[in-house]
Amino acid sequence: MTMGHQKEATSLSRVPGYGEPDLPASGRHDEPGALRRLLEPRSVAIIGASANPDKRGYQIIKALKKAGYNYPIFPVNPRGGAILDLPVYLGIDALPDAVDIVVIVRPAEEIPDILVQCGKKGVAGAVVLAHGFRERGGRGSDAEQRLRDALDISGVRIIGPNTSGMQNCTVRADFIGLPELPPGGPISVLTQSGNMILSVVEDSRSINGPGFDIIAGLGNQTDIGYGELIEELGKRKTTRSIAIYSEGLLDGRGFLDAAERVAQICPIVMLRGGRSVEGRKAALSHTGSIAGADDIAMKVLVQKGVILIDRSDELLPIAALLATSPLPKPKTGIAVLTDGGGHATLAVDALSRAGAPFASLSEDTKTRLKGVLGNEAKVENPIDVASAADAYPDVFRECIEILASDPQVGLVLINGLVGAYHIRFDASLLEAENSAAERMVALRKDTGLPLVFHSCYADRKPENHDILRKGGIQVFPSIELAATGSKALYARANWLSQQHSRVAELVPESSTVFVPSGLSAETAARGLLERLGVDTGKWLSAVDADSVEASISKFAGPCAVKLDSADVVHKSDAGGVRLGVTRGKGREAAEGICSDMTSHTPPLQKYGFIVTPMVDRGVELFVGATNDPVFGPVVLFGSGGVLVEMAKDVTFRAAPVSTEEALNMIEETHVAKILDGFRHFPRVDRRSLASFISSLSRAVLRMENLAELDINPLIANESGVYAVDVRLVGK
Amino acid sequence: MTMGHQKEATSLSRVPGYGEPDLPASGRHDEPGALRRLLEPRSVAIIGASANPDKRGYQIIKALKKAGYNYPIFPVNPRGGAILDLPVYLGIDALPDAVDIVVIVRPAEEIPDILVQCGKKGVAGAVVLAHGFRERGGRGSDAEQRLRDALDISGVRIIGPNTSGMQNCTVRADFIGLPELPPGGPISVLTQSGNMILSVVEDSRSINGPGFDIIAGLGNQTDIGYGELIEELGKRKTTRSIAIYSEGLLDGRGFLDAAERVAQICPIVMLRGGRSVEGRKAALSHTGSIAGADDIAMKVLVQKGVILIDRSDELLPIAALLATSPLPKPKTGIAVLTDGGGHATLAVDALSRAGAPFASLSEDTKTRLKGVLGNEAKVENPIDVASAADAYPDVFRECIEILASDPQVGLVLINGLVGAYHIRFDASLLEAENSAAERMVALRKDTGLPLVFHSCYADRKPENHDILRKGGIQVFPSIELAATGSKALYARANWLSQQHSRVAELVPESSTVFVPSGLSAETAARGLLERLGVDTGKWLSAVDADSVEASISKFAGPCAVKLDSADVVHKSDAGGVRLGVTRGKGREAAEGICSDMTSHTPPLQKYGFIVTPMVDRGVELFVGATNDPVFGPVVLFGSGGVLVEMAKDVTFRAAPVSTEEALNMIEETHVAKILDGFRHFPRVDRRSLASFISSLSRAVLRMENLAELDINPLIANESGVYAVDVRLVGK
Repeated sequence: MTMGHQKEATSLSRVPGYGEPDLPASGRHDEPGALRRLLEPRSVAIIGASANPDKRGYQIIKALKKAGYNYPIFPVNPRGGAILDLPVYLGIDALPDAVDIVVIVRPAEEIPDILVQCGKKGVAGAVVLAHGFRERGGRGSDAEQRLRDALDISGVRIIGPNTSGMQNCTVRADFIGLPELPPGGPISVLTQSGNMILSVVEDSRSINGPGFDIIAGLGNQTDIGYGELIEELGKRKTTRSIAIYSEGLLDGRGFLDAAERVAQICPIVMLRGGRSVEGRKAALSHTGSIAGADDIAMKVLVQKGVILIDRSDELLPIAALLATSPLPKPKTGIAVLTDGGGHATLAVDALSRAGAPFASLSEDTKTRLKGVLGNEAKVENPIDVASAADAYPDVFRECIEILASDPQVGLVLINGLVGAYHIRFDASLLEAENSAAERMVALRKDTGLPLVFHSCYADRKPENHDILRKGGIQVFPSIELAATGSKALYARANWLSQQHSRVAELVPESSTVFVPSGLSAETAARGLLERLGVDTGKWLSAVDADSVEASISKFAGPCAVKLDSADVVHKSDAGGVRLGVTRGKGREAAEGICSDMTSHTPPLQKYGFIVTPMVDRGVELFVGATNDPVFGPVVLFGSGGVLVEMAKDVTFRAAPVSTEEALNMIEETHVAKILDGFRHFPRVDRRSLASFISSLSRAVLRMENLAELDINPLIANESGVYAVDVRLVGK
Repeated sequence: MTMGHQKEATSLSRVPGYGEPDLPASGRHDEPGALRRLLEPRSVAIIGASANPDKRGYQIIKALKKAGYNYPIFPVNPRGGAILDLPVYLGIDALPDAVDIVVIVRPAEEIPDILVQCGKKGVAGAVVLAHGFRERGGRGSDAEQRLRDALDISGVRIIGPNTSGMQNCTVRADFIGLPELPPGGPISVLTQSGNMILSVVEDSRSINGPGFDIIAGLGNQTDIGYGELIEELGKRKTTRSIAIYSEGLLDGRGFLDAAERVAQICPIVMLRGGRSVEGRKAALSHTGSIAGADDIAMKVLVQKGVILIDRSDELLPIAALLATSPLPKPKTGIAVLTDGGGHATLAVDALSRAGAPFASLSEDTKTRLKGVLGNEAKVENPIDVASAADAYPDVFRECIEILASDPQVGLVLINGLVGAYHIRFDASLLEAENSAAERMVALRKDTGLPLVFHSCYADRKPENHDILRKGGIQVFPSIELAATGSKALYARANWLSQQHSRVAELVPESSTVFVPSGLSAETAARGLLERLGVDTGKWLSAVDADSVEASISKFAGPCAVKLDSADVVHKSDAGGVRLGVTRGKGREAAEGICSDMTSHTPPLQKYGFIVTPMVDRGVELFVGATNDPVFGPVVLFGSGGVLVEMAKDVTFRAAPVSTEEALNMIEETHVAKILDGFRHFPRVDRRSLASFISSLSRAVLRMENLAELDINPLIANESGVYAVDVRLVGK
């Protein structure tokens, strides 16, 4: 298989063994609480504390005190004395037992010893700022090996190395040292970039965001990675959404499993860096990790409930919205309520581009809206209050109240000048706008209806916008942001509503089958699939021209006669295929193939034939699987035929997929448009097709050593699906 | 032809006759200067002036005085007296002659008379705020007709009606009445939405933008439309970029012609509202105009030099960048200069997504960069200054100076914390950052190198960012915005560099051919194309089975025999096609078609046959044309075959297109990937193909009454292109 995205994935072949999956479990503080103590420390030691205000070992202590950290701080430095009025401990052994966290401000070469000493004192975790490990010397470097050994021996869990630090804004623990620690609140942030910590903090400041719980730079992820951290964040009552900036998941499969569990209870929003080929190069020069092939990553992360963000400037605002807003009910739509036509049009465009659903308003709703807005008002969705609110801002609230009682309305996006009539028209409206905001907060509380605001005056931060925000309602300065956010709320609501059926269907099976290295002959490939419960249709293996003829006579109609060899990748290009072979013509077909093979380079040692009945008519599809270096077994579905690489009409899911998920895959492709019958194409039985994809996805999980599997084309018609060509490749 | 986008276009069939194209030229003040006087008035009368502070007729006078408008203001009201110390004129006839502009604050029914009176007094133009014309009663309403008659009689040029007004920030004329008139500057704004005026003004405030020249709400565009206004803005020295929000161009073709001329000298940036089906509904309820089919509009606007913006929150910032930045040299690339890996990765991703070019740095550049940044520094593009700038902000300038001398570098995108080290690290860095900014301004002036900044602290508006901005360098708070802006500068530079060859090639021809209404028989369609210089390959017309046989014998190999009828759209579905017909089999083929036609519903009256030689092998393509209701004749190119509607692999240009433009069209499609030979597909001669598209595009301009033209498939191979099936439809 040579599809572009897959080549990309393979060429980025992961250096095995990074990160958490291959660390031995022995000797770790794996009792519940180690990670919790690390993230929410009730005591801190600074290894490498300094009295010099220019040093990080001083600044961290200063930042802790400035932030208002109310628990013991133990500076450690062999010189002793006092730093910022705190007595200095001469060494780690002098510390009290079981300190929750140490922040290590010492260079790379000292880290292993320090960790071992900390382990002896029952320290739960460490933030290791030093660089000079695998990001410099590679996985096999001496420094890296010593660090990993020390982790095993000490049992101390670490964030880093090569990290800008960590903050808990709830208990006011700042190990990063920002000019000011941001306010405590419901958003936790995991990132691989120090600059992105500054970005999200500034972005939160720009929108008067709801504040942060944990902010952590993961650095090299030598011990703790994204997967483990989101599991721990999911347990925290103070975290209501998780925002991630990642330039590559070291254990993608582990992350998917964790995300699927955590997303049941806490939204996960993710911005991926290094998505482009060029960006990946930039990311590699940054922390030395690997971004998965973009197309696959996008699909499998969404499959597991992760909400993907395309723009860095949207990560924090969307996380703020998901942390504070209720979710819309499934099978409802969005009503847009506006005070200006242009803004309404742009909101509707942005929602439509984001793929968000629109509400059809009931006749009763429209009648009641006219009661408020007048008979001339536009009360189709989008609803234009026009100038009705100019002098009486509570009109918005009155309309929302009506919309809240319409079962088709699941979310209201309010946009325009809202909240700024006192700026635009008359300062005397300030009071009225403030009290309108208070009533909207009460309404949202009463009804549970999600409300998302855009106001072109949001950057001026009028008082009433902050009233809304304190009531858990976000107000954005950008129409597109409000639309992306509304869509994200729906995406999450829909994902949650689909979880039940999925879990019921996919019962794991344990026995596995080994895929031989390299290309398998087609008969071997089909045999292996059948052992794993995948029906590849009728076929017979033949060793020579006579048995080809005999095989053809066992089928009712004309047959395809094909070369069966582990040495030829493109059978038809090599002259190894004869189509529509009828009874009595089998020998000739086989001999023709033999003759064509005599000129094959390199010469073929040994080969046989496979005979399959011709499939009359149907749509050519593509079903396959690949073993993604980051995310593991992934199934593919899309348009088939020789032009599969041109159309790139393909979608992905992590295996296994349920029949419902497979139906969703089918819907995502262009080819779906012709599956209900089009011109001379027959109607396709989608459920048979989905069921085939699902069975293949379960089989793939039971294949050891799989590299790639193509069924192309898979011909589908009214009566079922037929695997016309099967190609299986082991690692 | 039934492609989705085209159906959409057709179903939005335009009510003919709106706007400027069909207004008679007689009786207008068409001498140079009428529009200029309107846009930059040196005298203003307010018709409907009021002494009541709650009335618009008072507020406009107040706004003019507050804004600092330094020319005569003439309030007009039959009650007389004085308003805000200005003597009130009792009527229009009492006004001095040749007032530049009147602002009419009277209801719809009075407008026609007022215009006629104004015309008599030599008034150049009017802003008509009143609503109640075609947006309410439709094109044929009494109010609309009276208005249009008055326009003809009076010769007064109007903006509106149904507009929120107009501002000239340069001469401080505010007819909108914002709380504060924005600062004068290089951006002019044309919009169909009052709210969008507020949005761009607020967005400018948020980024400390360079200010505005003209801001105009076009309202119903009953007289002056976008095309005419951009031509006038293009002549203004004070306008350096034009930002447009449009929900539908009434005269799309006229706009394209104007845009092509204006874009040579002034950037045009456009946000289109009503792009989605849902958004179009919203737009229709707003000003009653029509958005062109989105796919076509995007391509033809870009073809004519318009820079399209997808997001409302990017319109103003990109217009600011284009108004203030020099352009990169063609065939160069972007260097990213950053102080943090995550930001660099995201910038590179965003640039890559936008399709912007990257610079490969010369070895000399890299060596010199290491001289500044140290030997360990990452000096591949993106260049990471890492901590080198933390204490010495001028490092950025030193690096830019090196990059400026690399001929491969056409633009530098600087991103990260830049300009905020005094916030992030130490307040004492403020001075150093300010002087670094001043040096960068000087450097940009010396070198002419475009610089685009992102800083995650931009929203805090540090002093040094404003130093950059005053030096014409934009600093954005969003990475994606900086990337979109950089791409826009390249798009404009590339467009300008391609204009020369185009104009030379496309010499207009004047004779036209009438396309009969409805479907043409294929032989008629081919004949018509040939008369217009389009080679559709070999074909013969045959009236009966005998002449089919005779025709086949005139060609060397097997032929296609097809029904030739104006009554059958899908020939092959109807049984009207026989392929690979060899000598001696022609009669049988023709008789088979006749037999299939006996069961055709409705019964066919009269038909013939067309005989063409079979084309052996090649790639199936699609070439066509449509008469877009907004943009006029448009050519299409894309993948061909029966699945053309599924793949939607198609692109568009306004006719005519040069061979170079046609080559660009080919590059934009997926099918381009296989045109250099792929599997069993032959290499395609792209220049023959492009030349065919170009000749068709010129022919299309000479077709009167064209509705649609399909050549599908057009088979292309090494030796040329072959029109296999031709379908021509007249209106």
